[in-house]
Amino acid sequence: MTTVSFFATVQDDIQLVEKRIRSQADDKNHPDLSAALEHLLASGGKRMRPTVVFLVGNLLGAPQDKLVTLGAAVEMLHTATLVHDDLIDGSLLRRGTSTLNARWSPAATVLTGDFLFAKAAKLAAEADHLPLMKLFAETLAVIVNGELTQLFAARGSVVRENYYERIYAKTASLFEMSARAAAMVSPADEQTIEALRLFGYEIGMAFQIVDDVLDFTGNQAAVGKPVGSDLLQGLVTLPALYYVENNPEDDDVRLLKDGGWGNRERMERLIVSIRASEAIRQSVDEARERVGRALAAIKRLPDSTEKSALKKLALYIVDRNL
Amino acid sequence: MTTVSFFATVQDDIQLVEKRIRSQADDKNHPDLSAALEHLLASGGKRMRPTVVFLVGNLLGAPQDKLVTLGAAVEMLHTATLVHDDLIDGSLLRRGTSTLNARWSPAATVLTGDFLFAKAAKLAAEADHLPLMKLFAETLAVIVNGELTQLFAARGSVVRENYYERIYAKTASLFEMSARAAAMVSPADEQTIEALRLFGYEIGMAFQIVDDVLDFTGNQAAVGKPVGSDLLQGLVTLPALYYVENNPEDDDVRLLKDGGWGNRERMERLIVSIRASEAIRQSVDEARERVGRALAAIKRLPDSTEKSALKKLALYIVDRNL
Repeated sequence: MTTVSFFATVQDDIQLVEKRIRSQADDKNHPDLSAALEHLLASGGKRMRPTVVFLVGNLLGAPQDKLVTLGAAVEMLHTATLVHDDLIDGSLLRRGTSTLNARWSPAATVLTGDFLFAKAAKLAAEADHLPLMKLFAETLAVIVNGELTQLFAARGSVVRENYYERIYAKTASLFEMSARAAAMVSPADEQTIEALRLFGYEIGMAFQIVDDVLDFTGNQAAVGKPVGSDLLQGLVTLPALYYVENNPEDDDVRLLKDGGWGNRERMERLIVSIRASEAIRQSVDEARERVGRALAAIKRLPDSTEKSALKKLALYIVDRNL
Repeated sequence: MTTVSFFATVQDDIQLVEKRIRSQADDKNHPDLSAALEHLLASGGKRMRPTVVFLVGNLLGAPQDKLVTLGAAVEMLHTATLVHDDLIDGSLLRRGTSTLNARWSPAATVLTGDFLFAKAAKLAAEADHLPLMKLFAETLAVIVNGELTQLFAARGSVVRENYYERIYAKTASLFEMSARAAAMVSPADEQTIEALRLFGYEIGMAFQIVDDVLDFTGNQAAVGKPVGSDLLQGLVTLPALYYVENNPEDDDVRLLKDGGWGNRERMERLIVSIRASEAIRQSVDEARERVGRALAAIKRLPDSTEKSALKKLALYIVDRNL
């Protein structure tokens, strides 16, 4: 795949980030914790967020050590939220690998998440940059606040605004922070920092939209959860929102709007309808549109290998698995 | 009680801290969260840590707004660790009031703790002081690391060093940070900051030792848990350590040393022995000694109302409920 070539340009940097993360568990004698961290690292995705940090930072000429620190902080914060998320959802699998809470007690899982939060905050502080530290704390607050809203807010809401708020908190805020913080530790002016912030925001929103599309179109075995699992839990994502708007008279749509998301049989039928509908393409188009806005945001930056890699990353976000 | 008169000198400051804490939950529409925060504030202790912040900061002439921010950050961090602790222990009562996890789901409890962590970090960042932010992140790491050690380490350890490490992580680290950070935002030289750090450290260690004594001598109804509950859970605290050292031939001591802390009947007998022994007085003496060291640390500071209040606070820590 030519689209993933951008990973190659930061491969060495990412190695340093992983080394940095591993070193965080070495300073005390917790073999169990080191094992858990190793498990999380081994099972853990593509390091999208540190990749954003390096692509942006390298583009703008940030010092490598700051980017390694920042990349490690961002990835640990991301991992911390996943650990607590999986505990809250009771998920036993993530990306086809067993979650921490599938193997550990809730107590150990809560504390491992806390440990990752603490270490992430420590790393962020080590970047020696007060505005970055503030941004980090604010982003953490946004993420947790989003999780609380998801937990407490009435399920089955078919309000677009709620959806965008939720995916911002859940995903885009950390992408936004990754790009913005990398720009902040670079010799860049305010306008450039803002351009990169917007870039991070838009690719983050696109990333979550694509994830939400994959929840409908993905292969159940590969994703590790049932097709349409979000809707079955009362989380109305973009494909469902488009379908609801396109088909206000559909019986299952009416039921959903009347708070009937708990009716499993009817929701399963609705999922089949959504999968076969225009709503999927419309959602993907919206993700592409956001990527287009991300690319427009960095248009005025001078051409370079790094800029080209950043473009490829943005395009990859919509194309992966679709 | 004349010993608690020091609270009066900071009463107005503490009101501002509580207002600041409450405002943290107002910025989003989470009535459940606001209610939870209100419950935590209402049930929550004497604000010892913010009191330390203000006594030290007022003594050294720190700006009030920084102290309010710092005091709120410290109290929220403290509350966050209590929320997760109670969840981990499955405690249903704290200070005679129901804990969050007694009323809420584990999910909501985990997230409320995370929310408090996030807001505490945000407040700490708002103090606009990078070394303070680093100290805050390091202290958080120490606390969580201590909880992990307590969870993973073999129970029933009768090693003094482990005990001191544990109470430092659990309690003294945050007292130390409160005093040190308040000094850091004051117009104070390095020597003064170090003196106050030591003051905070020693009163923090004394505070936990007294708590551990109260676990043996306290009134079960008032404390809300069985007498000797630590030992029944395999946590060997200072009174037990003294008793073990004084009575190496005692049958129950031998059993404890051989890993028999899980034998409830024998441990209950051991608790009765410890309660009736010299070990209690020895432990209290050690707490007093630490308070003496705390007072010695601030001896060279000029006399003032604030210094006198700080002394009273230190003495109160050993005298409360004993």
